[in-house]
Amino acid sequence: MITLASDFGTPYPAAMKGVLGQRTDARVVDVAHDFPRQDVRTAAFWLREVLPYFPPATHLVVIDPGVGTERAALVLRAGDHTLVGPDNGVLCPAARRLAGGDDGEREAYVIDEDEVGPVNPTIPSQPSEHGSPRSNTFHGRDVFAPAAAAVHDAESDALGSLTCLESGSVGVDLELPTADLEEHRAVGEVMVVDGFGNAITNVPGSFLDGRTRVLVNGDPVPVGETFAAVSVGARLATVGSHGYVELDVNRGRGEEAFGLAPGDRVVLETPS
Amino acid sequence: MITLASDFGTPYPAAMKGVLGQRTDARVVDVAHDFPRQDVRTAAFWLREVLPYFPPATHLVVIDPGVGTERAALVLRAGDHTLVGPDNGVLCPAARRLAGGDDGEREAYVIDEDEVGPVNPTIPSQPSEHGSPRSNTFHGRDVFAPAAAAVHDAESDALGSLTCLESGSVGVDLELPTADLEEHRAVGEVMVVDGFGNAITNVPGSFLDGRTRVLVNGDPVPVGETFAAVSVGARLATVGSHGYVELDVNRGRGEEAFGLAPGDRVVLETPS
Amino acid sequence: MITLASDFGTPYPAAMKGVLGQRTDARVVDVAHDFPRQDVRTAAFWLREVLPYFPPATHLVVIDPGVGTERAALVLRAGDHTLVGPDNGVLCPAARRLAGGDDGEREAYVIDEDEVGPVNPTIPSQPSEHGSPRSNTFHGRDVFAPAAAAVHDAESDALGSLTCLESGSVGVDLELPTADLEEHRAVGEVMVVDGFGNAITNVPGSFLDGRTRVLVNGDPVPVGETFAAVSVGARLATVGSHGYVELDVNRGRGEEAFGLAPGDRVVLETPS
Repeated sequence: MITLASDFGTPYPAAMKGVLGQRTDARVVDVAHDFPRQDVRTAAFWLREVLPYFPPATHLVVIDPGVGTERAALVLRAGDHTLVGPDNGVLCPAARRLAGGDDGEREAYVIDEDEVGPVNPTIPSQPSEHGSPRSNTFHGRDVFAPAAAAVHDAESDALGSLTCLESGSVGVDLELPTADLEEHRAVGEVMVVDGFGNAITNVPGSFLDGRTRVLVNGDPVPVGETFAAVSVGARLATVGSHGYVELDVNRGRGEEAFGLAPGDRVVLETPS
Repeated sequence: MITLASDFGTPYPAAMKGVLGQRTDARVVDVAHDFPRQDVRTAAFWLREVLPYFPPATHLVVIDPGVGTERAALVLRAGDHTLVGPDNGVLCPAARRLAGGDDGEREAYVIDEDEVGPVNPTIPSQPSEHGSPRSNTFHGRDVFAPAAAAVHDAESDALGSLTCLESGSVGVDLELPTADLEEHRAVGEVMVVDGFGNAITNVPGSFLDGRTRVLVNGDPVPVGETFAAVSVGARLATVGSHGYVELDVNRGRGEEAFGLAPGDRVVLETPS
Repeated sequence: MITLASDFGTPYPAAMKGVLGQRTDARVVDVAHDFPRQDVRTAAFWLREVLPYFPPATHLVVIDPGVGTERAALVLRAGDHTLVGPDNGVLCPAARRLAGGDDGEREAYVIDEDEVGPVNPTIPSQPSEHGSPRSNTFHGRDVFAPAAAAVHDAESDALGSLTCLESGSVGVDLELPTADLEEHRAVGEVMVVDGFGNAITNVPGSFLDGRTRVLVNGDPVPVGETFAAVSVGARLATVGSHGYVELDVNRGRGEEAFGLAPGDRVVLETPS
């Protein structure tokens, strides 16, 4: 199985699926193609939360604001999973989680981009210093998709026909922020807002254990196990499906009711 | 084949596909993930119209505003199809259609949620009265997806490894409204507006048989067999692909030209 | 493999996938379902650029503003690929590219629509002059999907169970505009704007060879090999992944910074 995640919208991911289809029979599953454009951190958060639910797979991730620059193209082995994408940090939080934590087994390889293409002989030649038809603006199609196909079809302890340079470490090892936790106070931030408007923080859900109310940036809010614990339109703090504290509204948009956006600071306190 | 429908947008459905991929080799096909959020009726309408075009399949449906409450999780057998989702009515109109009508063969089972999970051992533990890692806010991933995988892979007359309690009936048996029909007058309502802006009513298309004009809430409108029966930008009443009267504009948006929204009353009459 | 492209949004493509699933085991891959509604030219451009990356496949394309009128339903053989869709030009630029150019091998067939359906016996009967349940507004489901399934499963030199009339030529042979090229001046137009806001022209990328600056409608703009060749928020002209000149902003929206929309004239000149 190859999963596919990008900020491309449509129809660019279809070109990637075409390249994959030329090279492998693997099943292809979309994670999302509407991640906020060029927002490495948001994609990194979601991938860390979603990819562990997949069986061992090759995860092709293209959020790549530096496409065409010297940033490397990576293959990361993490536990039983493999990630393929740019060396800008977007793969790292998921790789750490898939490897079972900081001490888990991870290996990083740099893809030799000149060995990957050409992806299709029927397209017009691209001007390039390298004389290959690789574009400078769409490495999802021209570098990462062929690399993912090669890795997927390789034997378990090889990289198949993919020419890689073992590097031993990634260049940009993004770590997402963690909350500061005390017994009666947690200082964190909003990591993302989901499509329902739920403001998802980085405060572990266990902070809410045994509490019925919590101060959110000084403002008292009920704690509920489910959205329906409060009336329709009312605010609540709950533990989201990823295990973190969410600030929500039952059948409404928490981001608006709390006035919170990604990156905003969130202080949770036990009411006195 | 397992079909997947929700109001989740992205990337939540990917977590469901991961759980399915862990448990079954079934092909997974998306119906839609952009149903209006928490709008059981609209989803129920579309599922009734779309699911009958599929071959016998397991249909996983998660429009679930009551997630985490006491509402049951259901498996419905309807004809050669199986539906899995919350007991809030969203499955019922499709099940009735797939069973061949009110007298068709249907069976309802309640899923024992505590027997379904955990879905993945690598995720952080959730606080829960049950001590399991099942979340209170994402039963699409933690209850319905594993249940759908179990049902899909079961023998035709069993429910596989899924522990179910036979109930004999659903709790919320939603019936979508039907129009009142007389020879020269039909009183119905707008069920949904599709992406083209077509206002789809619940008046059977046969009401337009033999007519060239119809009064729509008192306003005369031409009847056309195709959009192109009227000039670009003009209004028409036609029979949509689902068999009901639609109020449309050729290459424009019927909802705006007619001033109609879902739930609005529509009276169709023969002009005098 | 069957690819699927439309302007349908959701959930209409799911009905097409259901019909395909009833009739063939072929893998189904989405190209896009958010093409601008009823915009034949934009879809024709994207299909020409994306479909060549696929392995030999059956490409089902439904951008069909004339649905229900006398416009024919076509099967086009182009090289090792097959296209199925309405005879309004949307298939032609891709077919020409897939056939390897104007002299490539192409064959056109007209689908006998009355021989294709019915697609499903469980749906309510549609009023129709033909007495069949084929709708007048959704030939993607009722004509093109069953035709694509029949063509896909046919032997390589046959059309399977599909009844076709060999026609020898298409009715509407859309050709997308090409730019006028001189050594120091190119006159073209914006073909499409992609989701990132990049304004993609029809001027071949080779026009930028060896240049570091270019006048865009009289306004000097740097030429860059990558977005990152200019600072964040700055404009550039580059060669896009399809081989044409794009007018972009590094991490911003080129269409806004250049004030350009699809169809707008673009004059590129060597600065004096």
